[in-house]
Amino acid sequence: MEFAEVVRRRRMIRHFTDEPVAPEVVDRLLAAALRAPSAGFSQGWAFLVLTDDEDRARFWPFVPTRVEQTPTMQLAPVVIVPLAHKATYLERYAEPDKGWEDRAEARWPAPYWFIDTGMASLLILLTAVDEGLDACFFGIQPDQLAPFRAEFGIPDDYAPLGGITVGHRAPDTPAQPAAVDERRRGAESVVHRGQFGVHG
Amino acid sequence: MEFAEVVRRRRMIRHFTDEPVAPEVVDRLLAAALRAPSAGFSQGWAFLVLTDDEDRARFWPFVPTRVEQTPTMQLAPVVIVPLAHKATYLERYAEPDKGWEDRAEARWPAPYWFIDTGMASLLILLTAVDEGLDACFFGIQPDQLAPFRAEFGIPDDYAPLGGITVGHRAPDTPAQPAAVDERRRGAESVVHRGQFGVHG
Repeated sequence: MEFAEVVRRRRMIRHFTDEPVAPEVVDRLLAAALRAPSAGFSQGWAFLVLTDDEDRARFWPFVPTRVEQTPTMQLAPVVIVPLAHKATYLERYAEPDKGWEDRAEARWPAPYWFIDTGMASLLILLTAVDEGLDACFFGIQPDQLAPFRAEFGIPDDYAPLGGITVGHRAPDTPAQPAAVDERRRGAESVVHRGQFGVHG
Repeated sequence: MEFAEVVRRRRMIRHFTDEPVAPEVVDRLLAAALRAPSAGFSQGWAFLVLTDDEDRARFWPFVPTRVEQTPTMQLAPVVIVPLAHKATYLERYAEPDKGWEDRAEARWPAPYWFIDTGMASLLILLTAVDEGLDACFFGIQPDQLAPFRAEFGIPDDYAPLGGITVGHRAPDTPAQPAAVDERRRGAESVVHRGQFGVHG
């Protein structure tokens, strides 16, 4: 699919069928994620991939009920949890070619472990559209982060960004509410030209 | 261009010519960024766009010299600084439909202001490739964040992620070092199946 068409079509879908996604498609989603850029090419990320019914059943209790948990959301045959690993970045920038001899977090002007893993997550969302599938990115309930880590054996220094469902859109999926386009911020409000506060 | 080809071609380019980029192309880069997903559709981001020579000359002193600052990097006719605005998110999730009545940061399982603005930044990088251009995403020197904000009138609650240069690649741009592909982490090391630590 044309790149611009993928960008235009991508939106969060919360209603799926249980139609399977081929393992090689899952591999392409992950391969795209691994092509994300990263500060210092640190690649401080990991991806927990849940494709067995039993594994996905273990996952859903950690997701906020009010926001995302609909029965058809849980039919999606693929759940991917992107995880950011800050320690990789602190170690990377302590290497000699970066010229920093300590691992101080203050060296970092922004938390690239989250930013880069977010970019990898977007590549999963976009690649799903390119594969004719749909996807949704959603948060994990904050007070469920610790039990979620325990359930899946995730070390404390890996921070989950949330979950990504991938699958086939349910045929009766509600159309995107007009409110979404109405609420989209336009360039006139968020683009500043030459100086902050100068628009147009 | 095909989506997969855009993803495959994208890489960080640090050598540009001073050939201009048409204003409508800059607008398409920004329009793509504004289609990034965001938690609760908060869209807590801003973009400082520097296309005048004088404005870009004001920008470059804030970039780390050892890492990125090459003369040909500074020839790029477009610099975009994506900024994350946490306050928008805290306000968004205090709205009644989200069910949270306070603005506590602890409600957030991950810093979506950085994650979402990172996704918007990736859409700029990918759209540049789709437009036949190249781009580079780089950090701002941590100890220069305060003077950078002062120079461009950026409020304290807007956090710059870094800078993005966009332009035409210099014809003598060195080929991507083989080390980049050698250093790319494969699925076997960062993909965990069903349980953290279970690969393959």
